Amino acid sequence: MMEGFVLHGDFLDTTAQRRVRWRKNAWAVCEDGRCAGVFDALPERWRGLPVHDCAGSVILPGLTDLHVHAPQYEFAGLGFDHQLLDWLEALAFPTEARYADADYARAHYGRFAADLRQGATTRVCAFATLHGAGAAVLMEALEQAGLAGGVGKVNMDRLSPDILREESTAVSLADTEAWILATRENFPHIRPVITPRFVPSCSPELLAGLGALAEKYGLPVQSHLDENQDEIALVAQLHPDCESYARVYDKYGLLPAECIMAHCVYLDAAERRLLRERGVFVAHCPGSNANIRSGIAPVTEYLDEGLSVGLGSDVAGGYTLDMFTAMRDALSASRLLWRLRGGTGRWLRSEEALFLATRGGGAFFGQVGAFEPGWEFDAVVVDESRWPARPQNTDAQRFERLLYQAGDRDVTAKYVAGRRLF
Amino acid sequence: MMEGFVLHGDFLDTTAQRRVRWRKNAWAVCEDGRCAGVFDALPERWRGLPVHDCAGSVILPGLTDLHVHAPQYEFAGLGFDHQLLDWLEALAFPTEARYADADYARAHYGRFAADLRQGATTRVCAFATLHGAGAAVLMEALEQAGLAGGVGKVNMDRLSPDILREESTAVSLADTEAWILATRENFPHIRPVITPRFVPSCSPELLAGLGALAEKYGLPVQSHLDENQDEIALVAQLHPDCESYARVYDKYGLLPAECIMAHCVYLDAAERRLLRERGVFVAHCPGSNANIRSGIAPVTEYLDEGLSVGLGSDVAGGYTLDMFTAMRDALSASRLLWRLRGGTGRWLRSEEALFLATRGGGAFFGQVGAFEPGWEFDAVVVDESRWPARPQNTDAQRFERLLYQAGDRDVTAKYVAGRRLF
Repeated sequence: MMEGFVLHGDFLDTTAQRRVRWRKNAWAVCEDGRCAGVFDALPERWRGLPVHDCAGSVILPGLTDLHVHAPQYEFAGLGFDHQLLDWLEALAFPTEARYADADYARAHYGRFAADLRQGATTRVCAFATLHGAGAAVLMEALEQAGLAGGVGKVNMDRLSPDILREESTAVSLADTEAWILATRENFPHIRPVITPRFVPSCSPELLAGLGALAEKYGLPVQSHLDENQDEIALVAQLHPDCESYARVYDKYGLLPAECIMAHCVYLDAAERRLLRERGVFVAHCPGSNANIRSGIAPVTEYLDEGLSVGLGSDVAGGYTLDMFTAMRDALSASRLLWRLRGGTGRWLRSEEALFLATRGGGAFFGQVGAFEPGWEFDAVVVDESRWPARPQNTDAQRFERLLYQAGDRDVTAKYVAGRRLF
Repeated sequence: MMEGFVLHGDFLDTTAQRRVRWRKNAWAVCEDGRCAGVFDALPERWRGLPVHDCAGSVILPGLTDLHVHAPQYEFAGLGFDHQLLDWLEALAFPTEARYADADYARAHYGRFAADLRQGATTRVCAFATLHGAGAAVLMEALEQAGLAGGVGKVNMDRLSPDILREESTAVSLADTEAWILATRENFPHIRPVITPRFVPSCSPELLAGLGALAEKYGLPVQSHLDENQDEIALVAQLHPDCESYARVYDKYGLLPAECIMAHCVYLDAAERRLLRERGVFVAHCPGSNANIRSGIAPVTEYLDEGLSVGLGSDVAGGYTLDMFTAMRDALSASRLLWRLRGGTGRWLRSEEALFLATRGGGAFFGQVGAFEPGWEFDAVVVDESRWPARPQNTDAQRFERLLYQAGDRDVTAKYVAGRRLF
């Protein structure tokens, strides 16, 4: 049994109504990795616990990254002048192919995990490569770095380059099951996630087999959906029997209760209904969608329609793991979309950016993303002292200042599920 | 006469063709504040000069900020959920009104100048407020901080709130001339700039008087142009005799040889021709244009048509003075515009972002923005060591890494017109 402790400071999180909530000069109690409550005065029964006193500092729930390609971290920010296919061929495919080498994987995934550890992200759902051994290395690296979440060994048995395509559907499935069996009990905080790269790179037999594995082992699924228009046209051509891209995943059992679909820039009405019915999480990746010119997902519509939405860095379509940047990118993109659509509808409110990066995405991992009684205790303490001076007449202004000034470098203490990382 | 010196390191700037140029392990000579050349080996004649050795470090020309509201710096990042008019009324107008108090101005402009000094910006063209004494305080603060550029006492005699409107046209013009006379010879590196806030806030008589002052004293002009569609409609209504917004400025002599027009999101064909003929600089402010939902300026078209273009932070429409952020914002905005226009035309190349922030905007200040013989010697040394490890197989990749990782905080040494600031 984990010991309890108390954290003291100015707690900032969001409500289910996507509103910012401040509890300043408050005391949060952690017991067995879960939040026992946030109190204006520390109740008698917990006064014997050790106190980590961050009086005056802002304390956020950890940030959640629903979509990131760990092997692409090493070239984040490179090659954005390329067209997408050139970028994949010049950078993504040859780099990912190197992860066949476990030593290479260990070195590079170690760096990825170390940098994530230092920042504000506490939960992550990551793509590895098609190599099962490499995916296990990534899980170990994240576990050792103290993070929580999921990792996927990627599947791709068609329409992929020779250097990065599995030998056959049978081998792809057998490797996946072997990887599941080898890892699912090894890492208390990192789960295996079924990860078809996306529809075009998986044969129907592979999709069906992955759906069966997800069901057999009760695993989550992650993939890409409706990222760009050429991709959507290709899927329509490959699966003429399905009325939409999302329907292809559904047909093969790949929209289970725990599921993340990245991007969703161009969901049609039927797809939105389907994702809502299935409880699928949309990983909104505004930085990537600008960098590689995919477009802007109408994220306010998804929220207002009741879809589950979180943010993804989508490194290396995104150039940084920093989820504060992802929040700012989400706001900018939504504001521009409003303008470029002629000023109709609404734009994302600042408070909703924090919701997406905490409670919105956190829900994929269970009771995560806010300081609620019974929820897992993720927290990051942020140092505001190095930012330019600003008037802080209101709590709202203090929140806005954080939104526009903070970065991973400002995190001075971090907890994941009650464990203190630093 | 200023002493000469030599700077040694990896020089990165752009050519007139908007291409990146590396001169690594090279020696730049500064004499009398100007660059005498960049050499693979230090020529004999300069071997007696002191050497600032930054071997292995990247050295950029200073960055140039063509548009920033100095009094708004204190609330940068606040209030972006507001509509524009609410934002002006809640934040901009009441804050600017406080600069009637010279002590208030001294404290806040001092902070603005100190933060600019620490970053990568070497040249700036700033709006103060309508208060002449405050504008002089800003000039002094920038001069003392070691920066170079221009400052405008703002003019506004109509359609402005009571707390921020000049008493009369005559007073506005008299105050402006008094401010010009009091400052134009006092600050070797900071010039007064004629600054009508924008057409709606200036009566025709005021515009005419400001045009006459610009001519009389040979001063530059700065203002706003075509930032958003409501503003354009209002100008059309106020000046039915002028066929465009830009034409109003031109009619009153406010597009002189040295001129910056901020934003230019919606220039029509005739306005583009007029600005090109007059040699007006467009201050492209992509961050602000997203934050306050103005739109996206088609900056690749302006460049390809031969307009002069630089970048502006537009604090506090922009949330940061950091021009590295402005470069990234310019790239994202252009990529999204390309997509949202259906994938026709082109998007801004990465190299062009550096061009805009250095040579493009630098040309407004004279021979500034590149390491060319005879040009003013602005330079910033950037520390790359704290960024995540990346493969740097090519110079192009090293440049891209800098573009996506660098910030004002990474500047370790800085020169403006040959003076070392730190």
